[in-house]
Amino acid sequence: MIIDHLDAPVPGSSLHPTLTGEAYTSAEVFEREQQEIFEKMWNCVLRADSIPSPGQWKTVTVGREEIIVVRTRKAGIKAYHNVCRHRGMRVCTSGDGKNKTLQCGYHAWTYALEGELVAAPNLTSMPDVDREQYGLKSVAVREWLGYVWVCLSDADQGEQPPSFEETVLGEVRTSFGAVESIDNYGIENLRCGESKTYDVAANWKLIIENFMECYHCATIHPELTEVIPEFADGLASQRANGEVHGASFGEQIRGFTVDGSDGVTEFPSIAPDQERKYYAITVKPQVFINTAPDQVIIHRMFPVSESRTIVVCDWLFLPEVVERVDAGELDVSKSVELFHRVNLQDFEACEQTQPSMSSRAYRSGGALVPSEHHIGEFHSWWTQRVEAGSAD
Amino acid sequence: MIIDHLDAPVPGSSLHPTLTGEAYTSAEVFEREQQEIFEKMWNCVLRADSIPSPGQWKTVTVGREEIIVVRTRKAGIKAYHNVCRHRGMRVCTSGDGKNKTLQCGYHAWTYALEGELVAAPNLTSMPDVDREQYGLKSVAVREWLGYVWVCLSDADQGEQPPSFEETVLGEVRTSFGAVESIDNYGIENLRCGESKTYDVAANWKLIIENFMECYHCATIHPELTEVIPEFADGLASQRANGEVHGASFGEQIRGFTVDGSDGVTEFPSIAPDQERKYYAITVKPQVFINTAPDQVIIHRMFPVSESRTIVVCDWLFLPEVVERVDAGELDVSKSVELFHRVNLQDFEACEQTQPSMSSRAYRSGGALVPSEHHIGEFHSWWTQRVEAGSAD
Amino acid sequence: MIIDHLDAPVPGSSLHPTLTGEAYTSAEVFEREQQEIFEKMWNCVLRADSIPSPGQWKTVTVGREEIIVVRTRKAGIKAYHNVCRHRGMRVCTSGDGKNKTLQCGYHAWTYALEGELVAAPNLTSMPDVDREQYGLKSVAVREWLGYVWVCLSDADQGEQPPSFEETVLGEVRTSFGAVESIDNYGIENLRCGESKTYDVAANWKLIIENFMECYHCATIHPELTEVIPEFADGLASQRANGEVHGASFGEQIRGFTVDGSDGVTEFPSIAPDQERKYYAITVKPQVFINTAPDQVIIHRMFPVSESRTIVVCDWLFLPEVVERVDAGELDVSKSVELFHRVNLQDFEACEQTQPSMSSRAYRSGGALVPSEHHIGEFHSWWTQRVEAGSAD
Repeated sequence: MIIDHLDAPVPGSSLHPTLTGEAYTSAEVFEREQQEIFEKMWNCVLRADSIPSPGQWKTVTVGREEIIVVRTRKAGIKAYHNVCRHRGMRVCTSGDGKNKTLQCGYHAWTYALEGELVAAPNLTSMPDVDREQYGLKSVAVREWLGYVWVCLSDADQGEQPPSFEETVLGEVRTSFGAVESIDNYGIENLRCGESKTYDVAANWKLIIENFMECYHCATIHPELTEVIPEFADGLASQRANGEVHGASFGEQIRGFTVDGSDGVTEFPSIAPDQERKYYAITVKPQVFINTAPDQVIIHRMFPVSESRTIVVCDWLFLPEVVERVDAGELDVSKSVELFHRVNLQDFEACEQTQPSMSSRAYRSGGALVPSEHHIGEFHSWWTQRVEAGSAD
Repeated sequence: MIIDHLDAPVPGSSLHPTLTGEAYTSAEVFEREQQEIFEKMWNCVLRADSIPSPGQWKTVTVGREEIIVVRTRKAGIKAYHNVCRHRGMRVCTSGDGKNKTLQCGYHAWTYALEGELVAAPNLTSMPDVDREQYGLKSVAVREWLGYVWVCLSDADQGEQPPSFEETVLGEVRTSFGAVESIDNYGIENLRCGESKTYDVAANWKLIIENFMECYHCATIHPELTEVIPEFADGLASQRANGEVHGASFGEQIRGFTVDGSDGVTEFPSIAPDQERKYYAITVKPQVFINTAPDQVIIHRMFPVSESRTIVVCDWLFLPEVVERVDAGELDVSKSVELFHRVNLQDFEACEQTQPSMSSRAYRSGGALVPSEHHIGEFHSWWTQRVEAGSAD
Repeated sequence: MIIDHLDAPVPGSSLHPTLTGEAYTSAEVFEREQQEIFEKMWNCVLRADSIPSPGQWKTVTVGREEIIVVRTRKAGIKAYHNVCRHRGMRVCTSGDGKNKTLQCGYHAWTYALEGELVAAPNLTSMPDVDREQYGLKSVAVREWLGYVWVCLSDADQGEQPPSFEETVLGEVRTSFGAVESIDNYGIENLRCGESKTYDVAANWKLIIENFMECYHCATIHPELTEVIPEFADGLASQRANGEVHGASFGEQIRGFTVDGSDGVTEFPSIAPDQERKYYAITVKPQVFINTAPDQVIIHRMFPVSESRTIVVCDWLFLPEVVERVDAGELDVSKSVELFHRVNLQDFEACEQTQPSMSSRAYRSGGALVPSEHHIGEFHSWWTQRVEAGSAD
């Protein structure tokens, strides 16, 4: 929804090319994306405070893999492939739980929260079985902004996780001017007041492209353009002359709500130029961060197929706000409703675009107008990653 | 259901070969059929009077493409790919409507009914954008028999639509003796009294083959063979000694109805030899025309996959007949019921045939008896079209 | 569920490799299995007494083919591809029936129960049509243990059915010591008291592997290990020192029932060492035979895709037992319930294993502990059959 590279140089022609339709419809391309992008980059998978105490775990899908994310007693949060090393059964067969160990329900192979094999029937008669070697296969974990991020880069294939600082933090730096600017929001200490899951019948790249431009705002987002009038001209940008300025609320607007009425308690540490401002950041390949003075909205995408993507959207508020909501003393539904409507409007547009991607009339792709030219940078990035994969 | 080439030369053996089972089960063959047959030939898509006034449009599927058919103010009926030239969204997102222009709901790119780009946000700041070049991609249109026919032959690939006169009218000439004979029915002025859609779990070629022979009539069509007794011997033909004669009603039969009772008002201009007669014409690749003295039945096929075909069947009557039906003064249900039962009986047979097409026991195909030998001409035609495609 | 090769030599390492995950997830591998295993070996398809009188037939699926099994008047039970030789329609369009001839419902081609073409419309005018040559395509049939076994080995491709004695009886001999031992149960004269069909979302090989080992019994089969305590140590075997001994009931157990209470009338001819014993036999590729003193349980597997298998389980009792059940004088539900629970427990484990087969973490497969090493012999057999196919 935000144009974060508008000040990039714009070549002569008004219209730039897009990716071709096949990029959005080929099952083979999608498999390569899973391998080269989602299974090699950092993925934001769940809120760390959703597994608050040792032994609590959740399962999540990253690329084509199911991963267990568990809070250990001594080693913080760890993540493993949800595959028993014996005969392969899912070790965790539901979405979440709390256990002292992770035990497979088939033959009772049992793993410590920290991953190593600690028990199995007749294991003592198999002295040559190395308990580390036959531990659950682990994947890299980071915590940032209160979320758990995992990276599946394949140690067996000699791969290393990419630098979190250069990839994830680098994207924030580009969009937000400095990583420190986001620190003002104290996102790691916020609490999730609402979470919605959207099952979108569209390729994940259509969803990213949609988030990257505001040329569509006037057409499909009446509530959002009421709150942020500059979005109505389709040329809105958070940046100008190399400086980040965010997008300003309209003069009559009192808060980031569906009707412009008052929001909730503002974040205490934000800078003056972050008050009455909305910022948006795309963290490739699957995260969108949107900030307002009193709420932070985080989207995580989970691609399922070339034409289907699960999007989970969290609305984060100050802990005391969520506590008052839980106590029935406060209502944040107008705050949540604004971006929920934006989501529904955007995903509807993506779903109406997906079927055309296989048309002969989109064989050579479409066109980007000047205020969308920066999407071409996303396309270049994508092409490079996917082609690198095909050279394997 | 009709043997239109019975007088073709029959070689020595009683049994001729069919296509092999793979022709009906291979997804790859089906894609080639879409490309070489349905997306290159003329398709009958809808009744022209279903979009009576300027600005009215409907979307239809032709081959693998979604097409908008719209009545313009000055240029008659036109047809376009339903793909916005900007980012590809479906321009029309429902099945039908009426609008002064065709506007994409994503970024408001707006097209005249005649196709050219007439408006878009910030378009004036993009002076190099040619409004014709960025107009909707059009496809060829013809009107005949009161129907809109479209052809998707790909101008970008240097293709031209095949001659309507040689292909569509040529088939009618072969089956009906002269195109003029069909003019007696005044089909372009009839009105649709009933329309039914059948979702058939069978390859489209099984449906054509079924329509081309009457060897099955005695087994599965008790009502039809009651009305047209000559169909019961399995050798029925509309032609003999090179002359078209049609199939005669039984002596006790009063009309083309499910029980042989009176039909409705006859067409005023039909010739004496069309009066107690039934004629059937196959217009490859997707139309069947059946005529009786008081009704014309038109089937249009829309192949969905190698094992699924949508068939739409219209029952056409004189306008005054449909007006009386609409006014509740007349009942045509016995007229409609006859061919509706024939359809159900035929499609059931096709659906029970489809699963065997993948059997090892049908690996080399089946057999055509003498009264089916003309189906071999359809198979030759098909082989030529599909092989031409594979040589691309 | 039974370890029939425990006394096979165990090489040095405690853990042996399994097949790789791809063997359980590749659609291409599955097609090859259908061709090389299920369509070339003997398949147990139905109980012969379910088609007791001449003209009675049932349709069954073997590999990717639908087969008619019919009791003839003079030639015992015969089996045919359910494909009309004319245009291919299913000759039998329901699951069972009783007819004097087998007539196709499309054009009335009619076949004797013994297979030859005996009538067709206008057949007399086609004197060159050989009624044997255009008879239904037959497949090999054997009866054993009261079941009909068919083999689809393709005579058109010069294939012969493998020796029933060497393959089917050979497997029983290996597991049971001597084929004669199974004769004591008189299985061919038993009656089916209950039959259940399970639709299992798992590859057929996971189901076989599960049946071949009891390392999982302690974890998932509380009722079974109560009845047969030796299964709880995960090392249970029917064989020791080269002799078959079966698995013994617990001391307090009175019958092979879900709660160890009394079973029903024992088989009169079983040997003393078969009296409080349970035996299990795997007959590759799709049959499991389990015997108790008063019931025989037969599983037949019908693979549908690489991740789905239909399993039909019959519980056989003495005829007088089933007669008393039918008369409402006897209840066998506790006898049936024991293995029904075992089935549900096993299939749940298989279904929780199937999704992991596509994981990167199972790319090189899992591990077999010593009491599972004989599963490696099944893997060797499988590899040989499937690779033979790929060399075609």
